[in-house]
Amino acid sequence: MNIEVCYTPELIHQFELEGKVVVVIDVLRATSCMVAGLSSGIDRIKPVASIEECLELGKRGYKMAGERGGEKVAEFDLGNSPFEYMEEQLKGKKVATTTTNGTRAISLSKAADKVLIGAFLNLGAIVRYLSEEGKDIVLFCAGWKGRYNLEDSLFAGAVCDQLSSKVSFTDDATLSAMHLYRSMSSTLSEFILQSNHAERLSNFGITKDLAYCSMIDVFDQVPFLNQEGELQV
Amino acid sequence: MNIEVCYTPELIHQFELEGKVVVVIDVLRATSCMVAGLSSGIDRIKPVASIEECLELGKRGYKMAGERGGEKVAEFDLGNSPFEYMEEQLKGKKVATTTTNGTRAISLSKAADKVLIGAFLNLGAIVRYLSEEGKDIVLFCAGWKGRYNLEDSLFAGAVCDQLSSKVSFTDDATLSAMHLYRSMSSTLSEFILQSNHAERLSNFGITKDLAYCSMIDVFDQVPFLNQEGELQV
Repeated sequence: MNIEVCYTPELIHQFELEGKVVVVIDVLRATSCMVAGLSSGIDRIKPVASIEECLELGKRGYKMAGERGGEKVAEFDLGNSPFEYMEEQLKGKKVATTTTNGTRAISLSKAADKVLIGAFLNLGAIVRYLSEEGKDIVLFCAGWKGRYNLEDSLFAGAVCDQLSSKVSFTDDATLSAMHLYRSMSSTLSEFILQSNHAERLSNFGITKDLAYCSMIDVFDQVPFLNQEGELQV
Repeated sequence: MNIEVCYTPELIHQFELEGKVVVVIDVLRATSCMVAGLSSGIDRIKPVASIEECLELGKRGYKMAGERGGEKVAEFDLGNSPFEYMEEQLKGKKVATTTTNGTRAISLSKAADKVLIGAFLNLGAIVRYLSEEGKDIVLFCAGWKGRYNLEDSLFAGAVCDQLSSKVSFTDDATLSAMHLYRSMSSTLSEFILQSNHAERLSNFGITKDLAYCSMIDVFDQVPFLNQEGELQV
């Protein structure tokens, strides 16, 4: 079982995805929302590229979710906070979502054998799934507008750390992510709050979201992309 | 004074280079060779993209240097070992060189105000230069075939660490590189030897090169790219 880390969507073309399990990671906040929402009763989440596609699905009964540059799209039912995704009224509902980075990473993962959604909220469940599946793994960080980001890399490092006795490493990005995580794990949430992305988001007054997205093992579910291009657990 | 780290040539399009100082980093081994060679008396080094261009310059009196995939090109005078670059017979000579990663990074840096050549061998000199110059900085890791590599990122982290009291950080890659370096600095050369690149190179029997390229502050010179597209000190 081999494991690789891709730091941004701009580098994913360098990775062979066929036959592998890809874990898409967008800790602040897309994949944290997906994990929280699907684990709390949302039936399906359909990630789409554009606001227009979301609006189109809204006409067909989907709840519309998403942000651009960290802010909720005006016409949508919900933005990109995990707390909105856990609201009672969404139970059993379908949600169409579009985000700056996470949706892009999911759409670039489709050649993989299986696409999973990872966040600190379901870290342990992701690790168990990967361990039992036994296939080669690509941990795909959504980054920020194509650039490296800290929180996604740290999550990738956490997965590598927990799987380190069972997997082989083929690249330095993996070694680096794991080392970064190991040296920071005792002060993880403080370190995440130092990140640029967190700084940007805290300007929107959502420090509660940041703290929640840094929590580990709140949920036991592993969302995956199904044949219809929708996420489910 | 702002500092950013670019982890691979595949990401350099995301960085604004104009008006900035770019430090090109290819620790194993291109920029270590350049620093060692120019500090030891080579007059000029011309980095070129292809073996053909090197052969062409060979006809015009240049010594020809370079590798492909870590091995010396058969027709060339020297390969890519820093020890070859320090040979007595090269003093006052011009050298044309082509390497897998380093040459590419240099050619992608040309929009910058100034292009410097950095390696652990001249770390302190690079830091002093950047500090005195006072311009915004991009630390440009050559990587390995477009992918992240450990030794270049560690060097970038070392520069950030030494400049940290004087610069502002705008991106997570910088924060991550600096943290990685700080947590590894006491065992730097051992850590570099764990890297994939080092493992590949050690298969060529050049562990002596690896140890040399991990040495800090052997030279006090800062090679830069001149108007003619040649490197000099």
